[in-house]
Amino acid sequence: MAENRNIYVNEKDHLVIGGCDSVELVKEFGTPLYVMDEYTIRNNMRIFKNAFDEFYEGKGLVLYASKAFCTTAICRIAHQEGLGLDVVSGGELYTAKKAGFPMEKVYFHGNNKSPKELSEALDSGIGRIVVDSVHELTVLNSLCQEKGVNARISVRVKPGIEAHTHDYILTGQIDSKFGVAVENGEIFEFARMAKCFENIELVGLHCHIGSQIFELEPFEKTVQVMLKVMADLKERYGIVITELNLGGGYGVQYTEEDDYIHYAKYIKSVSDTVKKICGEYGLETPFILMEPGRAIVANAGITLYTVGPVKDIKNVRKYVAIDGGMSDNPRYALYESKYTFVLANRMSAPKDQIVTVAGKHCESGDLLGKDVPLADVKPGDILAVLDTGAYNYSMSMNYNRTGRPPVVLVKDGKARVIVKGEDYEDIVRNDIIPEDL
Amino acid sequence: MAENRNIYVNEKDHLVIGGCDSVELVKEFGTPLYVMDEYTIRNNMRIFKNAFDEFYEGKGLVLYASKAFCTTAICRIAHQEGLGLDVVSGGELYTAKKAGFPMEKVYFHGNNKSPKELSEALDSGIGRIVVDSVHELTVLNSLCQEKGVNARISVRVKPGIEAHTHDYILTGQIDSKFGVAVENGEIFEFARMAKCFENIELVGLHCHIGSQIFELEPFEKTVQVMLKVMADLKERYGIVITELNLGGGYGVQYTEEDDYIHYAKYIKSVSDTVKKICGEYGLETPFILMEPGRAIVANAGITLYTVGPVKDIKNVRKYVAIDGGMSDNPRYALYESKYTFVLANRMSAPKDQIVTVAGKHCESGDLLGKDVPLADVKPGDILAVLDTGAYNYSMSMNYNRTGRPPVVLVKDGKARVIVKGEDYEDIVRNDIIPEDL
Repeated sequence: MAENRNIYVNEKDHLVIGGCDSVELVKEFGTPLYVMDEYTIRNNMRIFKNAFDEFYEGKGLVLYASKAFCTTAICRIAHQEGLGLDVVSGGELYTAKKAGFPMEKVYFHGNNKSPKELSEALDSGIGRIVVDSVHELTVLNSLCQEKGVNARISVRVKPGIEAHTHDYILTGQIDSKFGVAVENGEIFEFARMAKCFENIELVGLHCHIGSQIFELEPFEKTVQVMLKVMADLKERYGIVITELNLGGGYGVQYTEEDDYIHYAKYIKSVSDTVKKICGEYGLETPFILMEPGRAIVANAGITLYTVGPVKDIKNVRKYVAIDGGMSDNPRYALYESKYTFVLANRMSAPKDQIVTVAGKHCESGDLLGKDVPLADVKPGDILAVLDTGAYNYSMSMNYNRTGRPPVVLVKDGKARVIVKGEDYEDIVRNDIIPEDL
Repeated sequence: MAENRNIYVNEKDHLVIGGCDSVELVKEFGTPLYVMDEYTIRNNMRIFKNAFDEFYEGKGLVLYASKAFCTTAICRIAHQEGLGLDVVSGGELYTAKKAGFPMEKVYFHGNNKSPKELSEALDSGIGRIVVDSVHELTVLNSLCQEKGVNARISVRVKPGIEAHTHDYILTGQIDSKFGVAVENGEIFEFARMAKCFENIELVGLHCHIGSQIFELEPFEKTVQVMLKVMADLKERYGIVITELNLGGGYGVQYTEEDDYIHYAKYIKSVSDTVKKICGEYGLETPFILMEPGRAIVANAGITLYTVGPVKDIKNVRKYVAIDGGMSDNPRYALYESKYTFVLANRMSAPKDQIVTVAGKHCESGDLLGKDVPLADVKPGDILAVLDTGAYNYSMSMNYNRTGRPPVVLVKDGKARVIVKGEDYEDIVRNDIIPEDL
């Protein structure tokens, strides 16, 4: 097992996570079951936070990108660990409020925040609104005037760098629904307009260059572009930016094909680059924000399933059916995402088979993995899919009117429910048959 | 507007569906809003039902494939129209029960029904269980023995027909998670075993060859294969099959690139083929079932959105942001599905632009259409996406903690809510912060 997961195999040959025997978890909570390990979550948060303290004199804040996994409990944990929060909707903002998260450490993102959401954000005393367009800037300013309040904002910038896993390109990123571009001058137009609005204070620049990035270089290049924008804004328009938000995208190891990343290296590399370039431009070093989401929760989560029929179609394919699928994990259907699969009840069984893991939904694309290594699997086995902590629960759906599984948080051998599973009544509770139908 | 949708443009230049001005619907219910037209739903159901009466002497039953759009109200409508129901999960079965649907007309599908679901199906007095594998047959027989009941079943067969459609939604081939194959003899093994089980009565064969099929030939070929299996079962093992379920897959016209299909033609073609081949084999003509889902509800539904920021990036792309996206319609993200877009508040504005319709979610893949024709669109316009009645609400999710929109059923100028929209409290209602966290 990879060292970056808090799991091991016990004397019964069972998978153990957070000190809990996964077979016992299944007995108590049933399947499918999302399991999140509290230690790994906190540890990942600390890696980022401590690296800021060590390499950038603490002049930064880690924002947990809650879209990866947003519930009241994870907001509470992020607060306890001294992180801020990145929210992207009224629903995520509401979740943060419900969890008692200090609003001044919440940053509100999104390419199309509604006036209602912007209003709720202002009313909540939110830390920053990361404004995405001139249109939104205008709407926000009007709202501020109506309410007689000021908004401290960042602006989302397209730095012209687009990173993909093991590669990045310097063009094309302008073709995005998010933010304002550098290369066509949109950012300067935005900043000049923001300066004219009395209720708006532009304090930060934000960018996000992609997902699952394993190299340092794209981040260093991005820092160069963003600091150049900061220098230009100061020199040309006298606009002083004090915050630089570099977004997320830090790669996570889903299978052995992915590299294992030491996140502190990102922070060190970015810190060094910022200090060096600020020196060159004669800029004061900005307050830095980073927004890991997947890097905080992906490897903290596993999903447990019970194996149903196994169809070994000779010379064709071996299908292993599980009692969940695209409703609790749509990432294979959406992106053909790769995962690591293990038999949680027979961990030492040799992975000498190639199988296709199929969900239970009435859809051929409902798979979790195609041609993946697994031990000789039988109906009734417990299949664990590793690293499902990010974008699984948060993207889950009720397709085929399937209730979403519960989420349990495990720590020191103890499991606590942090999201209740849905039953049949939950499924139909919003259905209405009109009286005259 | 295509004749197969119950929509027109009124004197205010607004889109009207089911007699309701869509701009007024938005005023009353907000956006995003799913709108389903009752007349179109009932009309589509009648087209299938009447064709059976006309071309097959009524010796058949149309089952509404509820996975396309499953709520209590649509179950009620299907019952009123004399249809049966195809359900694929305990949740869909529960919905049917809640709607008071007669259980003897419900058929239970799925590649991995749990013992709990099978048990619930037996207890409900369900019409048929469509058994997917020998494994399931064994589980079902044990349950029947425990309960002291008999089960009338069909078996899902892979006829080996590959319908011309999207790669992800092929289901007739031997390389499928569904059913037992013909070409390797699995179906005969299954039938012989079923014959040995005292509590099991095998009465039907079921197949499903794909989705969005626009040709008649694949269905005719399928009938040939299935009737050959029926003849072989009778001749070799003395097993008499009296029901033939040909599944769904009837193509729906989403854009002008798709053909418009007269569904009655399918029924006529299938009926003729069945009669002809049964004559050749000396078989009695079977009771026939068909399972349209998309063909019943897709063109009955539209989704209404409010347009937010419009980003016209010179020489690159024009992004039109709407206040929904992959959370209420994940079909573009999943399959790059194509839709027809109109401005519901300015229907006569010429479609002289090429735009990309982007959702509001924090995900670059959150689009509803790339490079689609649309009129010159402005923030505040109402964008209608047509033919969203199937697999939109049923696949909707709470990504970014977005509440799912309400569904209104429109008829004769009257709109009735059949699914309540979700608010922030709905989003957090299953969240728990453990006391000792």
